[in-house]
Amino acid sequence: MAHEVRLVLVGLGNLGRRFCRILADKAGFLEERYRLRLVLVGAADSRGTAHSPGGLDPALIARIKEEGGSVRDYPGAGSPGTALELVKACEAEVLCEATPVNLDAGAKPGLSVIREALSRGMHVVTPNKGPIVLAYRELSELARKQGVELRFDGTVAGGLPALYLGARDLRGAEIKMVEAVPNLVTGYILDLLAEGLNWEEALTRARKEGALEADPSFDLDGWDAAAKLVILANHVLGYPARLEDVEREGIRGVDPEEVRRARERGGLVRLVARAERRDGGYRLTVRPEEIPPGHPLSVLGRKGMGVVYYTDIYGTISATIREEDPVPSAATMLRDILDIYLGR
Amino acid sequence: MAHEVRLVLVGLGNLGRRFCRILADKAGFLEERYRLRLVLVGAADSRGTAHSPGGLDPALIARIKEEGGSVRDYPGAGSPGTALELVKACEAEVLCEATPVNLDAGAKPGLSVIREALSRGMHVVTPNKGPIVLAYRELSELARKQGVELRFDGTVAGGLPALYLGARDLRGAEIKMVEAVPNLVTGYILDLLAEGLNWEEALTRARKEGALEADPSFDLDGWDAAAKLVILANHVLGYPARLEDVEREGIRGVDPEEVRRARERGGLVRLVARAERRDGGYRLTVRPEEIPPGHPLSVLGRKGMGVVYYTDIYGTISATIREEDPVPSAATMLRDILDIYLGR
Repeated sequence: MAHEVRLVLVGLGNLGRRFCRILADKAGFLEERYRLRLVLVGAADSRGTAHSPGGLDPALIARIKEEGGSVRDYPGAGSPGTALELVKACEAEVLCEATPVNLDAGAKPGLSVIREALSRGMHVVTPNKGPIVLAYRELSELARKQGVELRFDGTVAGGLPALYLGARDLRGAEIKMVEAVPNLVTGYILDLLAEGLNWEEALTRARKEGALEADPSFDLDGWDAAAKLVILANHVLGYPARLEDVEREGIRGVDPEEVRRARERGGLVRLVARAERRDGGYRLTVRPEEIPPGHPLSVLGRKGMGVVYYTDIYGTISATIREEDPVPSAATMLRDILDIYLGR
Repeated sequence: MAHEVRLVLVGLGNLGRRFCRILADKAGFLEERYRLRLVLVGAADSRGTAHSPGGLDPALIARIKEEGGSVRDYPGAGSPGTALELVKACEAEVLCEATPVNLDAGAKPGLSVIREALSRGMHVVTPNKGPIVLAYRELSELARKQGVELRFDGTVAGGLPALYLGARDLRGAEIKMVEAVPNLVTGYILDLLAEGLNWEEALTRARKEGALEADPSFDLDGWDAAAKLVILANHVLGYPARLEDVEREGIRGVDPEEVRRARERGGLVRLVARAERRDGGYRLTVRPEEIPPGHPLSVLGRKGMGVVYYTDIYGTISATIREEDPVPSAATMLRDILDIYLGR
């Protein structure tokens, strides 16, 4: 007999709808391999919700979203309510929170929905940096108090288990330094510069291909990388950093000529997020750096992200991922759920 | 109050004595950070044992071994008994098994000592490939039956958590292929060839520097890499492979000229262990291959090992380690112990 776990999913954009597709595709595999049946009982987008205690069809939700619709129109289960109302009403074991990142202090709707779910005794899995950056300590303590799990492996480097690696497999070590290249968009733009485009051409190309948001500041000015570094510092290093503790320099000032020269030397330029041991704490920086040939992150292509941990007893350990699309980032919610239910 | 965990350590060679040093150096840190006190109550080398229910001094054992002595001479606690006798007599929660690798069917003393410890209800952590390759299924089932943990993260790529990464962080995925460079010695020799040495010079140099065993076949003919691939196949892929299932070609037939040309092209030659999905199972091979520039393992230096997992939903994930000495391999026993006692 399979163990049944009821999920409610908030956010049906790039990640949420891909997660629905994964749920549909993997149902048989999960039941056969792990004796686990994941049942989606609720789903919310910005226009409404769908709710069915007996289970929604994740493939149908994926299709509705791919066609530009809203789950409020889900046959027999849709309604114009809000995500928060859904989470309040839903009986489920896990909230999957996948709304767009929002680093404003309100961070709605992610933060309020996560608070509500934890308060109701639900586990929470989320690839959404916003709530974790803004309220790491509050949410961690709330989860502990409630005896539930809060997981956010997808917040730092897409589908790369950078947090699990650092927080679990490096236990016992002192981490002297962490270097991460956690942002895809800046890597893509820097590679366009390396190929000979000028800044204007590179931005136009990136925007045309949908890689760049309408407001590109989040990526280009290093806010995304800084947010990821803050999560890593808190969760892996146990260092209670906030966004304002990061010395942050984006890539807008990068000279394309330097990027091209770095490539000629066999290296590459990337926006590097770094935590370096200093005075009992860590110095946190985000800035463009030349990564020399032979460095574990020198192999990152356009679709690559990575992290390097410099430790005292485990040597220097690095991990990289190549993500051709957002599927791995969406799949981190599955990784987190399996980790909660299968443990070690 | 710290939680006390009693350890018995069998094998005080390269890894065992370094593990003693780690226990001594990290005692304060482990107690402060994790409220865990690891007490070494027994230790065995090939000449005798030391046993003290109140705890042995790991720093003293490290010193005795560094000076070429035996724990049989440990003041007030030494005796000429065997490791198996020690494990039978010792009251402890964890066996740390670090005897030299032995792929013969007997695989003594590791296998018999591990069987005894599991039968007595002790957890077992070991970086020793021999017992795991030869008796993966038997030992896993014995551990499950006894309700204890069997951990062997150090068996596959030194201090790299290749097994934890594959078996835990990739759950939910189908792993289409694994590529690993799990052997240090062959990488070192291939790099010497790349630098212009001929085969005889490279082997002489490696032997003089202590990198090569008296019987070099274990490394050069790919037995070590094949053993690691078998463990990976069983534990990560759930594929019940045995050593004889691996198509194995060592590096002795490698033409130094080809190695040099690969380096000129920006790549390198390494002994690659590969598992490739085929006909519902996996095809397992160990053979020298050219790793092209840009490949995640193309950055492996002399002290580097690594693994790449090609998955359906988590993209392509790679991990590498640079180990300057055997400390990271020894430290995997600490990682395994912490994982058992701290869980997630």
